[in-house]
Amino acid sequence: MKEYMGKDFLLQTETAKHLFHDYSENLPIVDYHCHIPPQEIYEDRKFENIAQVWLGGHQKRADGSDYYFGDHYKWRLMRCNGVPEEYITGDQPDRERFQKFAESLELAIGNPMVHWTQLELKKYFGYTKPLTGKTAQEVWDLCNDKLQNDPNLTVRGLVAQSNVAFIGTTDDPVDSLEWHEKIKNDPSIKYTVAPSYRPDKALNIHQAGFRDYMKQLSEVSGMSLNSAADVRNALEQRLDFFVSLGCKASDHGIEYIPQTGADETTASAVFAKAMKGEAISDAEREDWQSWLMKELGKMYAAKDVVMQIHYNALRNENTKMFKTLGADTGFDGIDSHNSVHGIKDLLDGLTCNGGCPKTILYSLNPNDFDMLATMAGCFQEDSDVPSRIQLGSAWWFCDTKDGMENHARTLARLGVFGDFVGMLTDSRSFLSYTRHEYFRRIICNVVGNWVENGEFQNDDEVLKKIVSGISYYNAENYFGLKK
Amino acid sequence: MKEYMGKDFLLQTETAKHLFHDYSENLPIVDYHCHIPPQEIYEDRKFENIAQVWLGGHQKRADGSDYYFGDHYKWRLMRCNGVPEEYITGDQPDRERFQKFAESLELAIGNPMVHWTQLELKKYFGYTKPLTGKTAQEVWDLCNDKLQNDPNLTVRGLVAQSNVAFIGTTDDPVDSLEWHEKIKNDPSIKYTVAPSYRPDKALNIHQAGFRDYMKQLSEVSGMSLNSAADVRNALEQRLDFFVSLGCKASDHGIEYIPQTGADETTASAVFAKAMKGEAISDAEREDWQSWLMKELGKMYAAKDVVMQIHYNALRNENTKMFKTLGADTGFDGIDSHNSVHGIKDLLDGLTCNGGCPKTILYSLNPNDFDMLATMAGCFQEDSDVPSRIQLGSAWWFCDTKDGMENHARTLARLGVFGDFVGMLTDSRSFLSYTRHEYFRRIICNVVGNWVENGEFQNDDEVLKKIVSGISYYNAENYFGLKK
Amino acid sequence: MKEYMGKDFLLQTETAKHLFHDYSENLPIVDYHCHIPPQEIYEDRKFENIAQVWLGGHQKRADGSDYYFGDHYKWRLMRCNGVPEEYITGDQPDRERFQKFAESLELAIGNPMVHWTQLELKKYFGYTKPLTGKTAQEVWDLCNDKLQNDPNLTVRGLVAQSNVAFIGTTDDPVDSLEWHEKIKNDPSIKYTVAPSYRPDKALNIHQAGFRDYMKQLSEVSGMSLNSAADVRNALEQRLDFFVSLGCKASDHGIEYIPQTGADETTASAVFAKAMKGEAISDAEREDWQSWLMKELGKMYAAKDVVMQIHYNALRNENTKMFKTLGADTGFDGIDSHNSVHGIKDLLDGLTCNGGCPKTILYSLNPNDFDMLATMAGCFQEDSDVPSRIQLGSAWWFCDTKDGMENHARTLARLGVFGDFVGMLTDSRSFLSYTRHEYFRRIICNVVGNWVENGEFQNDDEVLKKIVSGISYYNAENYFGLKK
Repeated sequence: MKEYMGKDFLLQTETAKHLFHDYSENLPIVDYHCHIPPQEIYEDRKFENIAQVWLGGHQKRADGSDYYFGDHYKWRLMRCNGVPEEYITGDQPDRERFQKFAESLELAIGNPMVHWTQLELKKYFGYTKPLTGKTAQEVWDLCNDKLQNDPNLTVRGLVAQSNVAFIGTTDDPVDSLEWHEKIKNDPSIKYTVAPSYRPDKALNIHQAGFRDYMKQLSEVSGMSLNSAADVRNALEQRLDFFVSLGCKASDHGIEYIPQTGADETTASAVFAKAMKGEAISDAEREDWQSWLMKELGKMYAAKDVVMQIHYNALRNENTKMFKTLGADTGFDGIDSHNSVHGIKDLLDGLTCNGGCPKTILYSLNPNDFDMLATMAGCFQEDSDVPSRIQLGSAWWFCDTKDGMENHARTLARLGVFGDFVGMLTDSRSFLSYTRHEYFRRIICNVVGNWVENGEFQNDDEVLKKIVSGISYYNAENYFGLKK
Repeated sequence: MKEYMGKDFLLQTETAKHLFHDYSENLPIVDYHCHIPPQEIYEDRKFENIAQVWLGGHQKRADGSDYYFGDHYKWRLMRCNGVPEEYITGDQPDRERFQKFAESLELAIGNPMVHWTQLELKKYFGYTKPLTGKTAQEVWDLCNDKLQNDPNLTVRGLVAQSNVAFIGTTDDPVDSLEWHEKIKNDPSIKYTVAPSYRPDKALNIHQAGFRDYMKQLSEVSGMSLNSAADVRNALEQRLDFFVSLGCKASDHGIEYIPQTGADETTASAVFAKAMKGEAISDAEREDWQSWLMKELGKMYAAKDVVMQIHYNALRNENTKMFKTLGADTGFDGIDSHNSVHGIKDLLDGLTCNGGCPKTILYSLNPNDFDMLATMAGCFQEDSDVPSRIQLGSAWWFCDTKDGMENHARTLARLGVFGDFVGMLTDSRSFLSYTRHEYFRRIICNVVGNWVENGEFQNDDEVLKKIVSGISYYNAENYFGLKK
Repeated sequence: MKEYMGKDFLLQTETAKHLFHDYSENLPIVDYHCHIPPQEIYEDRKFENIAQVWLGGHQKRADGSDYYFGDHYKWRLMRCNGVPEEYITGDQPDRERFQKFAESLELAIGNPMVHWTQLELKKYFGYTKPLTGKTAQEVWDLCNDKLQNDPNLTVRGLVAQSNVAFIGTTDDPVDSLEWHEKIKNDPSIKYTVAPSYRPDKALNIHQAGFRDYMKQLSEVSGMSLNSAADVRNALEQRLDFFVSLGCKASDHGIEYIPQTGADETTASAVFAKAMKGEAISDAEREDWQSWLMKELGKMYAAKDVVMQIHYNALRNENTKMFKTLGADTGFDGIDSHNSVHGIKDLLDGLTCNGGCPKTILYSLNPNDFDMLATMAGCFQEDSDVPSRIQLGSAWWFCDTKDGMENHARTLARLGVFGDFVGMLTDSRSFLSYTRHEYFRRIICNVVGNWVENGEFQNDDEVLKKIVSGISYYNAENYFGLKK
């Protein structure tokens, strides 16, 4: 029996151990897509206790204002195990909330939460035993002591000790990026923190807040927005601003990718209707999104910004809980939209009209992986970067050991695995850099199995190139991070 | 080489062997969903020969009436192997039909039929060699001798020796449940046999027999049915009757789950049309089903009855054979309806209107597993039972070794595996309780692999809780069977 | 560590080694579906260098005319790795093109291209080291020397040394089959080369070239085409001609399978419109295809020709590159059409109207495998050939080690694996017969694992029957090749 989550966790062969420990483990981290608040980096936030870190609660900012923060993955797991809401997002004492979480974890064999939790306990707190109902008190005491007293466990300390080279946050085009500017101007911060451009609200023309959002966009850009072209121009101005602060990537969260072939005139008509406050039909929304996605794609190509698309998430399924807790609280699931022709038309349209940007395609539905990997292969021609179009790393509900192995094997059999840009955390937490370790172990193990089974040559130079590339160098190259 | 289907069949590690033999193998069986006729239990049916048991044929009831009975899984396998129909459902001698089956089995490597057959031969007849064309005579003689002479091989004997604690049959709301009453009143039957409520015919308003069915429903309920509300009320009265006889679960077999948001007025209009014998359009059927599913869901929640939904089966694909042999004769397949939003709207609508019942979601299409597991996770809030909404055990064409492993891993990575309610036979046969053994071996092996690979702690107490829970205790708790 | 692609490549158990080396490896090859030009067999084409063989380029025919030929799988892999197009389909020197290919291969761990390439190098050139950027010169020299001087490396030499018994090419109904006739009349060719009937152009009534194609069909058949019935009759005449030259199978490449129930009158109306040069709507195309597929299916049944259907390929996704390079140049992907009811209606309609032909169903989308395997099981009744309806061997993007294992396990759990007709190359290259070796190793390994894990009896006679059947005898039987 292998040691529980020991030094060679998930490394089943000697080759895997060698590749991980010698060519992957110690490379810096490029976390090119995450949701951490740059403010917390700048302010070097400190955490009160492990329940606050993991389960969240009301938090105070440096200026004294209050906000709620927490990990909806953990909330969801606790709900699945029948824990009452008052222990999850409610006002029960933190120590008791932590106890309920530890007890739920006991039964969650096979869930990545077990590994994430244990990797964090090991790396940041030096705790190597299983977290269960019985050990919860011991873990509570240890973690809280460190959180209070260890300077490596503030936000900046965590990032630094995790050997992070680059952080790509997720930001709205109307964001002032004030915290990014402050970070940029702080010489004590050695790693790069760059904004990513996520214009979802500009695409969601059918949603209630669209007019208010346009007002904000008008204000920050200083442009009046009277047509689709105006919106595009304002968004382009903001993208330029983002790029001036180091932005390397955009991001889109969208149910599915419509391509109706709508032109600017049609888009302007929909825009006019929306700005009058009239209801927008599905067909009109599709026209708007179809046109705007293509315009944005052109901008990304022109400015060498990577286009990331995340689709097939069904959000806020539980209306009752949405009304109580709001979005991003653990009530989302996988959707099954057929977006083959929509994505194809987008990439093809861009290719035929000046060029398709570097693109990473993420679906929350694993049934889409093979399709997306083959679509990526159709738009790789004459690129300056290997595998310019990529099947994105296993995302959210796919971001598990099984999911990462499935992704890796899919990408390998349908593309060039050695060109994969690798892992991102997609996380709101500063402890989750260990997911890069988790990913690297899995990749090294997959590669090791191929080699040990005689399916690939045991050529150390080639293997080092593949493994270190996926761990770090490919992302550095793809996102243009070399200084 | 491992012994062929020996004591440690499918148990690849020491941990797996320990977990199965010490914590799972000897626990009672809760078979919460099956299709066995309660009459056969009460009458303690005896079988003439092994061909009659497995391949079926014309059977005589205690009262002398005749019916046809058999296992369409086996018929289908024989057809796949090019066996003429006269040996399958026709009038060739039983011995020759059995021979053809044995010869087909020889080539069916990787098909669960091999394991099911051998497990039944081993457990009930003590035969451990492979059934092939060559051993068919030996098996024929042995089985028939036991079927004639062994008191443990009548229906009651089979259930008793299988250590069954609970059987949930599948029954129509208009059923008199007379055999359930008789069983209930027979002190010599120590296990519980409870009806399950399956109102498919009330939902299938577009089908030819609907008006006749309504007539039956009206008669058994003593209510006249002049509106959608009348139908709901009659169905509720019948559900109360079922519950009075121990019913713990309902069941729905439906192509896909429509949710049109239709209200009672709309449903009543469709109902009026159907009762006039007019053709019902797809849209009208969807309105009726949409409304009635929600009404039934409310009843289940109020009466603490589990709602089971089975969808994505495409039935009776071969019209020629359907006309000859009727339904459930081996001509069904997997369908690919996209029911994401339909199921979501159903569960969400119930949640927002007084509560969603405990629900088990089964799709015949394995592509739906990840989606369903994440949907389940969206409706678990504030439950009195852990994992109130479950991704159902691998069903029918998914009910194979690969399918069960796939189901287990999906559930584990997306939910709390330790809360899984486990296996059911879904069977028409009294020999198929060995499928619980098959399932338990697979589960113990999956868990054992995680532990031996260092992916979960080797904590005997925790592992026992997980494995024995999935084998027995979770179902006992979920269905409220504790006395 | 296992030897890299050695004698026991992919054979993980002793049973697997025994089955492959003793019962599979040396059996003849039935390559019942491929795209090789029969002309090249007859003319016994010789290759200039290994870049010409693998990457292609302008080729000269015996008569001095010029054409372009190459392997779009390799082109695609190179594009994925960021190789400029001039090295792929352009005019850079062959030696440099080969270098770029070798360097791309280095990073393509997990891609079947690595195995295909190495198996070809081993079998046909005796080269066993990995092909990398460093060994490219050595491989170049070795291969080119053999291609120039080894009589076994002409087209006829390659086929002969590969132990091929039957080649089924892919041919248009209007083809003269002149090369097939010549081959048939050449006593020095010992294996059978038979045409397959692929009437895609007759089905694609919506495409630009339809009228020209009808003109060709009219000419070769000597029939004037004034109605749908005329087209059917001309196609039947051509099918008879194909059958007279040994045709055993038809083939259809179609996006999805529509079944609208359109009758001949409707089809004739659509035909008349198309022949006037009017645009054909999607609904009209569906009517035409629906009717014609059923008519063709009836012919196949009557003439005992196997019906092959390939669907869910999305072709020519990249319009820019399509305009430059044309079709079949590496810009295709997986589509996600839901064809469940279309295929069911086709097979059911044929079954109810005189009989369904032997049918092999291939989807490019692996999500369809389980569905198709269960659909096949619905139409197997009363067949003279075991598993008359088959889930086709893993195709194109599915034709990988993972894909073949997935296919094998799917087929096994949902059908009778021992009746599987096995592998085809689907290839344009005379070197790719090694894919049969690749397939046989994988099948023997899957079977070996079942046996060694105690999941199937270690009965040598039965195992030999299964493995040799899938390798050779089942195809011989299914396609009626026994002389």
